[in-house]
Amino acid sequence: MENHAYVIQVSGNGNLHDSINGRFLPAKMKIRKPKWNIKASEMSNKTFNPIRAIVDSMKIEPNPNKSMIRLSIGDPTVFGNLPTDEEVLHAMKEAIDSGKYNGYAPSIGYQSSREVVASYYTGPEAPLDAMDVILTSGCSQAIEMAIGVLCNPGDNILVPCPGFSLYKTLALSMGIDVKLYNLLPEESWEIDLKQLESLIDDKTSCIIINNPSNPCGSVFSKSHLQKILAVLVTHSCLFYSFYFIQVFPGSRYYPIAPLSTDVPILSCGGLAKRWLVPGWRLGWILIHDRKDLFGSEIREGLIRLSQRILGPCTIVQGALKDIINNPSQEFYSSTIHIMKSNADICYNSLSSVPGLRPVRPSGAMYLMVGIEMEHFPEFQSDVDFTERLVAEQSVFCLPATCFEYPNFFRIVVTVPEEMMVEACNRIQEFCQQHYEPYSNHIIQDIDCDK
Amino acid sequence: MENHAYVIQVSGNGNLHDSINGRFLPAKMKIRKPKWNIKASEMSNKTFNPIRAIVDSMKIEPNPNKSMIRLSIGDPTVFGNLPTDEEVLHAMKEAIDSGKYNGYAPSIGYQSSREVVASYYTGPEAPLDAMDVILTSGCSQAIEMAIGVLCNPGDNILVPCPGFSLYKTLALSMGIDVKLYNLLPEESWEIDLKQLESLIDDKTSCIIINNPSNPCGSVFSKSHLQKILAVLVTHSCLFYSFYFIQVFPGSRYYPIAPLSTDVPILSCGGLAKRWLVPGWRLGWILIHDRKDLFGSEIREGLIRLSQRILGPCTIVQGALKDIINNPSQEFYSSTIHIMKSNADICYNSLSSVPGLRPVRPSGAMYLMVGIEMEHFPEFQSDVDFTERLVAEQSVFCLPATCFEYPNFFRIVVTVPEEMMVEACNRIQEFCQQHYEPYSNHIIQDIDCDK
Ligand SMILES: Cc1ncc(COP(=O)(O)O)c(C=O)c1O
Ligand SMILES: Cc1ncc(COP(=O)(O)O)c(C=O)c1O
Repeated sequence: MENHAYVIQVSGNGNLHDSINGRFLPAKMKIRKPKWNIKASEMSNKTFNPIRAIVDSMKIEPNPNKSMIRLSIGDPTVFGNLPTDEEVLHAMKEAIDSGKYNGYAPSIGYQSSREVVASYYTGPEAPLDAMDVILTSGCSQAIEMAIGVLCNPGDNILVPCPGFSLYKTLALSMGIDVKLYNLLPEESWEIDLKQLESLIDDKTSCIIINNPSNPCGSVFSKSHLQKILAVLVTHSCLFYSFYFIQVFPGSRYYPIAPLSTDVPILSCGGLAKRWLVPGWRLGWILIHDRKDLFGSEIREGLIRLSQRILGPCTIVQGALKDIINNPSQEFYSSTIHIMKSNADICYNSLSSVPGLRPVRPSGAMYLMVGIEMEHFPEFQSDVDFTERLVAEQSVFCLPATCFEYPNFFRIVVTVPEEMMVEACNRIQEFCQQHYEPYSNHIIQDIDCDK
Repeated sequence: MENHAYVIQVSGNGNLHDSINGRFLPAKMKIRKPKWNIKASEMSNKTFNPIRAIVDSMKIEPNPNKSMIRLSIGDPTVFGNLPTDEEVLHAMKEAIDSGKYNGYAPSIGYQSSREVVASYYTGPEAPLDAMDVILTSGCSQAIEMAIGVLCNPGDNILVPCPGFSLYKTLALSMGIDVKLYNLLPEESWEIDLKQLESLIDDKTSCIIINNPSNPCGSVFSKSHLQKILAVLVTHSCLFYSFYFIQVFPGSRYYPIAPLSTDVPILSCGGLAKRWLVPGWRLGWILIHDRKDLFGSEIREGLIRLSQRILGPCTIVQGALKDIINNPSQEFYSSTIHIMKSNADICYNSLSSVPGLRPVRPSGAMYLMVGIEMEHFPEFQSDVDFTERLVAEQSVFCLPATCFEYPNFFRIVVTVPEEMMVEACNRIQEFCQQHYEPYSNHIIQDIDCDK
């Protein structure tokens, strides 16, 4: 038996414990914890999803006279206008019929499926083979494993602001500190590199770059990526990125790995958004490490972590080759076309609305809109603004406070076109009704000056 | 910026750090961590799978003149003799064709899929509804979440010995201590309840019961389960169990929840072994808590944890109703029949082998065999024994050191019958060749006495 006995638990912070020692207690006495005092663990309490917390506390009561339009949901499949390709479904049924994919796969995924991902992403400057690929249960688990293998409690990581909330949620749950680096709306959401650099310290164990960005829909230029890499090389900091979805015609997506020979990268991606099957939960980590800086340590660490829950669904793994290779170019380009066209409609429509400052996106499926709060003195915050937009116009957008970026809201552009148009009209109407050319506050200031 | 500067990192344990203070360093000087000093995190290092570690270090070189028979693999699908039901495959294809299951599901699973699991397991004494079910990525993730929500670092959990290694692997990786309670081979692997009770202390946050057992193949009687519950009630300890697979005809499986009105239970299970699709990674947690002792704390904690990786594959979730309800009784009984028949062949054959002590299983898909090591003086350990069994007879069984239970080995009984027979014959031959009726050691003792 352990020698744990003789400890008296008191509630509150009485110091009974200090004033008692073994002498005063019968040698065999052992006081147990209070009966059924069941508490959720600290880790589960720290697994805090800010989007859920904010949305759950919002009053989302639509105007009963208008049908609800949800521009909040980051799931491109909900409206039915963006189906996956028939080839993708066919691939799954073939994998089922083959009977070959019912048993356990290796915990990092079948060799053949990892080969498929490797050859999809490999290139002369940043070659990948199956050993550089780990299959995961969605990109979410890829992120969990990448943070989990690189960071210890007490370390810090740098994450974008505004940014996808899961990075912070996962890091804090593991006792890892989070520092936010700024994206600059006036620079198409490029990173404020000076500020990024100022945040790096000897406890910084990784920097997360998200490109294309959720929630911004921005896509970094080649030269910006090179500048980011230059910062990372100087400071010996790790790095990882996210392959999201194609970018809009006119913009170009540069994968980061070929641009760097030195910076080791764990790159997280998945099937969800490009193949329009987020529910299937297949993601991956690509290990780019030409200078062998991760060494076997990180690779073996990732393999160990994969053994916790034994990889993603084998049917999807078995179908992966055909899912990735068989859809026609037409499938990819029509998806992008729909999103680009919606993004244009939305951007053009909201640009002319006094009080709003939409930022034109270049890819992904989102668009961020700044609110000139001084012109909407009725509203306390972006949360307030979006709540009232639901109440009056039945249009629901996520307040960007969800992304730690107040005074903006995020619009998802995967809805059907007529919904996009209607939603923009309603937002316009809403703003017209609440816009104050000069806010009361400024008028008061002028009054005072007189 | 943080005030972390002025720390000098030295390798080894020089005490440079102690002898320096701010006065001797220029105020702005900041010494960074050594360039690219990348280490895998402690958590990933602590995610230690003993089976992998032991098996990877074993010499598994079969006898080139005999075909390899692997009785080591806990995957019932690998030999093709235990296919899943056609209805199960059909259900999957229907789910794909419906087009309804490509988007994100709620992170704890679709309501309708959770209802299916609830109605499969509900009963008058232990009613369940959809709110009591959390779908997970395999039973492995169910175990990870159950431990994760109940325990804090520094707590301890009690796990069976011999036992499934993942419990310990996951707990240690989270900084939770593990104490082993004994199963008694001479009592059909019932729990040594006295010893179990002696291990419980004020840091014990859960006790894991695994029934039917991996690796023992044992199934607890109703009265034994009642005695276990009595211990748990006295000590206010949590509890959780694992639904594995049907038990053999002649034995009976009692779910534990209906036997207790007081003990809150998180019960972890999944599709893997009963429906013979372990690769599909669908598991579940059933929350049994009639006295509301978990309260909202644990339920909300589980929901928060589910948001980390957003649940299991939606196609499998969509097919779940038909997977669970449509296979004929014939499917389940023929699976069980094959395993029972193999278990009988194996048990009967090895019972007559001098030096071996197989323990008759009542369910699951395993059988444990004790090695009377004193009769095999050539071998140092069960690892040594099983290594030589491969080298000479090309039969690979897992040494039970993998389950923290030396001097036993585990046989998987899901292989085709002719393989089972052949493997037993080879084990018999191996033992005959190495068995010593009196060990050299005993003979020497007698010599000394003279
Ligand atoms: C930037 C980013 N990373 C990761 C994810 C999660 O991807 P998955 O659904 O594959 O887990 C999302 C989902 O929206 C995302 O926006
Ligand atoms: C007792 C026990 N629990 C859990 C598991 C893991 O199940 P899954 O494959 O659904 O993660 C196994 C697998 O063998 C097991 O034996």
